[in-house]
Amino acid sequence: MTGADILERLAQVLETRKQADPDESYVAGLYAKGPDAVLKKIAEEAAETIMAVKDGDPKQIVHETTDLWFHCLVMLAQQNLSPVSVLAELENRYGLSGIAEKAKRANA
Amino acid sequence: MTGADILERLAQVLETRKQADPDESYVAGLYAKGPDAVLKKIAEEAAETIMAVKDGDPKQIVHETTDLWFHCLVMLAQQNLSPVSVLAELENRYGLSGIAEKAKRANA
Amino acid sequence: MTGADILERLAQVLETRKQADPDESYVAGLYAKGPDAVLKKIAEEAAETIMAVKDGDPKQIVHETTDLWFHCLVMLAQQNLSPVSVLAELENRYGLSGIAEKAKRANA
Amino acid sequence: MTGADILERLAQVLETRKQADPDESYVAGLYAKGPDAVLKKIAEEAAETIMAVKDGDPKQIVHETTDLWFHCLVMLAQQNLSPVSVLAELENRYGLSGIAEKAKRANA
Repeated sequence: MTGADILERLAQVLETRKQADPDESYVAGLYAKGPDAVLKKIAEEAAETIMAVKDGDPKQIVHETTDLWFHCLVMLAQQNLSPVSVLAELENRYGLSGIAEKAKRANA
Repeated sequence: MTGADILERLAQVLETRKQADPDESYVAGLYAKGPDAVLKKIAEEAAETIMAVKDGDPKQIVHETTDLWFHCLVMLAQQNLSPVSVLAELENRYGLSGIAEKAKRANA
Repeated sequence: MTGADILERLAQVLETRKQADPDESYVAGLYAKGPDAVLKKIAEEAAETIMAVKDGDPKQIVHETTDLWFHCLVMLAQQNLSPVSVLAELENRYGLSGIAEKAKRANA
Repeated sequence: MTGADILERLAQVLETRKQADPDESYVAGLYAKGPDAVLKKIAEEAAETIMAVKDGDPKQIVHETTDLWFHCLVMLAQQNLSPVSVLAELENRYGLSGIAEKAKRANA
């Protein structure tokens, strides 16, 4: 399974959670609390990522970055946006597509 | 190009920037400033993502989430870690792989 | 000069900066950029405070906490709010005033 | 009671909480969890302050700024630092003391 598959499949799972019972699904619980609850998690996980880097613990860095990206995916689902849009902007911005394969944003 | 390709290809580009001139490459400039500079950007971009959601601007939300993920990728490169590890943990944690395709973490 | 005097006097200085030239005053420059610029600084200085604590550098902790509080004061001025309101809520919430001098919020 | 009195008196209260039962005092509970727990709260309260400003709710802005400063005070106590040091740096940096009463940091 490729990275796009992983992110898109996870986005689909997050979409189905919109119909789930907030008491039985962590994500459905977040949705039920409203957008601010997810935003607080993004702030918290960004801080935990920063702290993991300061601690110099590779496993913890991957773990907290995963938490941060996961909660970004929940926020995107809540906003009816797709991670594909983020990947497309990364691809477009850093010129990874097409023939040239050189940064559109010079010196990225 | 799939998402994994995009993230891995971008990770490769970020790797090559370790040899680039800090005055000519934004990323090389970040590396040269040391890890704290990237961590500050992660905090700043997380805040801008939160603010974009509060503003309810879909285009800006995608733009700021892209900035946040991009600086996470720079941090991972700086720590000699791969986005593949993050994708693998997402896949593993939310049971997207293999035959079962059901959440290992119950009620994700 | 007491703490209230410092915070109130600084609030007065920040008020006068609303008439200052954005090119000549850092604070007037922040005002001119709009509220989001100050909010980004709050996020950034909070992250720097966290990083200073992780670094275990007392001087840097005081320095970054000062930066964080300073930008909170700029935000309050921008919102036409006074630090006296924050001090009053601290006093009220933690029962520091009056005869009783015991926490209204039990077990603060 | 002046602002300095409020902050110093609160710092004293926070000092006494170092001997309190973590199950009976919110602050003692934070201390018991270690420094990272307080740092996460600083990140979270900074985000909530930002969100309150975006919501344009003056009462909530004061409330969240109070929470942010309160958790900074807990962090300072945990690090055996005093809010007086922060006030002194504010005073010194912005030239509020002495005869001149003009910014040492030009154009603050």
